[in-house]
Amino acid sequence: MNTLYIIKIGGNIIDDETKLSSFLKSFASIKGKKILVHGGGKLATKLADKMGVQQQMIDGRRITDAETLKIVVMVYAGYINKNIVAKLQSNGCNAIGLSGADGNLIQAHKRQHATIDYGFVGDIDSVNIDLLKTFLDKGIAVVAAPITHDATGVLLNTNADTIAQEIATALGKLYQTELIYSFEKKGVLLDVNDENSVIPQINAAYYTELKEKQLIFAGMIPKLDNAFAALQKGVNKVIIGKAEELQQLIEGNAGTTINHE
Amino acid sequence: MNTLYIIKIGGNIIDDETKLSSFLKSFASIKGKKILVHGGGKLATKLADKMGVQQQMIDGRRITDAETLKIVVMVYAGYINKNIVAKLQSNGCNAIGLSGADGNLIQAHKRQHATIDYGFVGDIDSVNIDLLKTFLDKGIAVVAAPITHDATGVLLNTNADTIAQEIATALGKLYQTELIYSFEKKGVLLDVNDENSVIPQINAAYYTELKEKQLIFAGMIPKLDNAFAALQKGVNKVIIGKAEELQQLIEGNAGTTINHE
Repeated sequence: MNTLYIIKIGGNIIDDETKLSSFLKSFASIKGKKILVHGGGKLATKLADKMGVQQQMIDGRRITDAETLKIVVMVYAGYINKNIVAKLQSNGCNAIGLSGADGNLIQAHKRQHATIDYGFVGDIDSVNIDLLKTFLDKGIAVVAAPITHDATGVLLNTNADTIAQEIATALGKLYQTELIYSFEKKGVLLDVNDENSVIPQINAAYYTELKEKQLIFAGMIPKLDNAFAALQKGVNKVIIGKAEELQQLIEGNAGTTINHE
Repeated sequence: MNTLYIIKIGGNIIDDETKLSSFLKSFASIKGKKILVHGGGKLATKLADKMGVQQQMIDGRRITDAETLKIVVMVYAGYINKNIVAKLQSNGCNAIGLSGADGNLIQAHKRQHATIDYGFVGDIDSVNIDLLKTFLDKGIAVVAAPITHDATGVLLNTNADTIAQEIATALGKLYQTELIYSFEKKGVLLDVNDENSVIPQINAAYYTELKEKQLIFAGMIPKLDNAFAALQKGVNKVIIGKAEELQQLIEGNAGTTINHE
């Protein structure tokens, strides 16, 4: 079976050099076609502090003003992306790091919102399937940074969970696709303070129930919304789990599996 | 004729938003296969100052310690590279921005020197011709940042003039290649203070003579050494001139042409 893995790696792992190295070693060892989408981690915030750039947050989302955009482009598409690629190369995995501007990989538009100006934040319009296919067919792993462009020369800060979902969805037309959201937790937890309360399977009805009972940690909701959107749009499988258990997640022996029904 | 243009754009133009935009518009309008190699500009130094990272220089070259490496990776492979790519996209030129780690484009090793430790500075071992050919054949312009890797996971700061020369030389086997060093001056000047003292043609004998008479501005010597190296290794044409005159440089109506004999 010719499965394409689209793996999102969360911020907390990126901030931990040892965990990141170990994760990248696992990623490099995956046979076949694969794409890594990375988030930002805390480095951008640290750098902004050092530079005296104030950060604004609304609903847990960073407001990206012009100065913050410069920083996230430097940190996400520069420092994090290139270090990941160099480490994958050292693990024998030929990889190419791309922002959404590169080869017109991901085109987006500045977010429109009735009351909040998110600044330079992008909502995705299109994913360049041909470009991705070129790399995948040559055995090159793509490493996507959470930066897109609007085709008028403007770069946009874009949610990495959503990028992973949109890439998986777009490529679902060409490949058997499996989307894995990997982060610091073992999966979707019934009790956020208990690592052993992983819910093995969630379907749409159960998700609605969990949300109504407010049993889903707020930070998980965008991830789960993206997971269900991916399934609805043709992705074959979505799994949420711990980055350190990547191999077990792929084998179906860990994490939370998101189900259609 | 199927000419491939490899164009180096110097730092002073990168620091000037208006000049850079105008240059990128010219670059976008070049018909056929093209590669842009960019330098760093002063932004890395400014950012280092803001972050309180001290810069050391020896013989006009920056010593790249671990903190400086982080900064140049962020600024060169992140901020500058992605902004150039986004602007080229907005000018209808499909471009992809790469560091040497991406797709194993440029492999290098840490510079060995008897007395000076340059830090994380790379001397080039190989250029991935197949990868470049893939993009050029698809009509995608490559934008190369002056960052390479050593295949053990370490990124290295690498001279952009040399990258341009090595890329031109490597691709000389596949294409009719023309290497253009574009910067803030009209060409190689006989009198560094007189913009109208452009030397139209320089051959090796004349270059030796100019160096002996100390008529060549020190900053030009690495560029000219790279130019002659490129010609000796099979590049068809090398031109040095003003970024704002890119079109005329390509047409052979401006700048200094470097000749074999």
